[in-house]
Amino acid sequence: MTLPRRIEIREEGPREGFQFEKGEIATARKLELIEALAQTGLRHIQTVSFVDPRRVPGMADAEAVCAGLTPHPGVTYNALWLNPKGFLRALVAPNIALEGSVSVSASEVFGRRNQNRDREQDLAAAAALMALYAQHRVPLARITIMAAFGCNFQGEVPIGAVLDRIEALLALAGGAGLERPYVSLADTMAWATPPAIQRVVGAVREKWPDLEVSLHLHDTRGMAMANAWAGLQMGVARFDAAIAGLGGCPFARHAGAAGNICTEDLALLCAESGIETGLQLERLMAAGRLAEEVVGHPLPGRVKQAGLLMANA
Amino acid sequence: MTLPRRIEIREEGPREGFQFEKGEIATARKLELIEALAQTGLRHIQTVSFVDPRRVPGMADAEAVCAGLTPHPGVTYNALWLNPKGFLRALVAPNIALEGSVSVSASEVFGRRNQNRDREQDLAAAAALMALYAQHRVPLARITIMAAFGCNFQGEVPIGAVLDRIEALLALAGGAGLERPYVSLADTMAWATPPAIQRVVGAVREKWPDLEVSLHLHDTRGMAMANAWAGLQMGVARFDAAIAGLGGCPFARHAGAAGNICTEDLALLCAESGIETGLQLERLMAAGRLAEEVVGHPLPGRVKQAGLLMANA
Repeated sequence: MTLPRRIEIREEGPREGFQFEKGEIATARKLELIEALAQTGLRHIQTVSFVDPRRVPGMADAEAVCAGLTPHPGVTYNALWLNPKGFLRALVAPNIALEGSVSVSASEVFGRRNQNRDREQDLAAAAALMALYAQHRVPLARITIMAAFGCNFQGEVPIGAVLDRIEALLALAGGAGLERPYVSLADTMAWATPPAIQRVVGAVREKWPDLEVSLHLHDTRGMAMANAWAGLQMGVARFDAAIAGLGGCPFARHAGAAGNICTEDLALLCAESGIETGLQLERLMAAGRLAEEVVGHPLPGRVKQAGLLMANA
Repeated sequence: MTLPRRIEIREEGPREGFQFEKGEIATARKLELIEALAQTGLRHIQTVSFVDPRRVPGMADAEAVCAGLTPHPGVTYNALWLNPKGFLRALVAPNIALEGSVSVSASEVFGRRNQNRDREQDLAAAAALMALYAQHRVPLARITIMAAFGCNFQGEVPIGAVLDRIEALLALAGGAGLERPYVSLADTMAWATPPAIQRVVGAVREKWPDLEVSLHLHDTRGMAMANAWAGLQMGVARFDAAIAGLGGCPFARHAGAAGNICTEDLALLCAESGIETGLQLERLMAAGRLAEEVVGHPLPGRVKQAGLLMANA
């Protein structure tokens, strides 16, 4: 067991949450939450996704959100895009730090259902984005392997498929003259359990000992914190998380009820395990409560309501 | 890491839940849930507590619940009591398997606030119960150390205090001519984290290598599943759990918002980690949904709504 001394938690709550929520949320309220998050010690906040507003109405104000961001030293605001069109919007958006990323699915069935792409088309789309990054001198920060731990449509995802996609993407990145990114293993459909984390992270480590691994965990089946702990025990030092568990609704009886692991709950685990995060827990909890207010319904994170230790003394 | 091959999950949902819930629940509905639980493979179901109905109105029908239980081969219905008066009620209640237990607090501050007893009084009360068990030939099945991982009122609880209480209780049990019980380490106020589980369970193991350790975990701060995993990694093979996470309410902003670890979520973790529980997941999930119906509000467990893997395929 090798716990990392320090980890980086990358906040994805605004992007995950506002994309997921059905009700309309005023741009000003989104900005209020992002500003609260910027005061917590978080260094990377994913604020919007540049996607088709007809498909994701909650992101129709992406440019307005970017324009309204308040810069802070040490805080970078990121964005998500899935194709060249989205990237070109990000390129001209104000206040957004451009970190290139590409995503492919380790499950071919999911890839076809999600993006209508097979393995080759998935990789070709990633290559097209990489070419754009090279052209615009945007670094490739990360490659994401979706469905890395299993898939609702395909079932088990062989570890070989995960390794295959990483290998192909690293080769493409090298071919495009881009520096080596880190790899984000995404538990897109919440199949991961601690033994699965051990198996998949272990296999990636064995093949590429110097490749940094990040985890993107969803709590649909209540395993996110146990999975994070399994990752920490293997020295994983980078996690995506969402304030208050944004992006999920604990009461929707559907597959979408799958918020990311909750930022402040994960930060508490780290604080009490002697792992530095640079985060201020009280402020994170306040931001978590604000997130509930902004979306207008309860959110799954626990610490924001339970309080820190001694809170009830 | 030594995962157990098989664990026993002891269901405490009916007792934890009906004790906690504010609204009145008809005896017949309680029995309906208990009967559903009895069909899941659970072998131990804690059904009621024999406490003062003026203090715990939800348990005013304890005798009626016991009378209405349907016996099933291999299923034992248990009850909780905290003093001789409660034990004497349990002694004459129908359908209840008498398993003696005593509880003391590792935190003296909590002991005083909870039961108005200091260490000596706590131990004297345990001794009085043990004498009754010996007199009525009821086995002492377990000793419970409350606040074993920390206390909202005292703060940190030294491991020495946990070991001290166990040592004193084992001596009292020996003195009363009772067989050695197992020890339940109860995270009464949800202070545990995986490193704390490792420290406390490790210290108990070191001092009494043959003493069986059980964990009673609450999810108030979102750590229950990670804590269970930490316990499993140390070979802990007995857990209390509550169907659907009964006993807590995810939306109450108070210290009581602290259901036990959720039975069906824990069972899923075990199933996917190759650990036998003897439980039927689909039936547990249905019982979890029934529990929500019976209490009339959502409960925190995740798997009951997320479904098993492939459920959305």
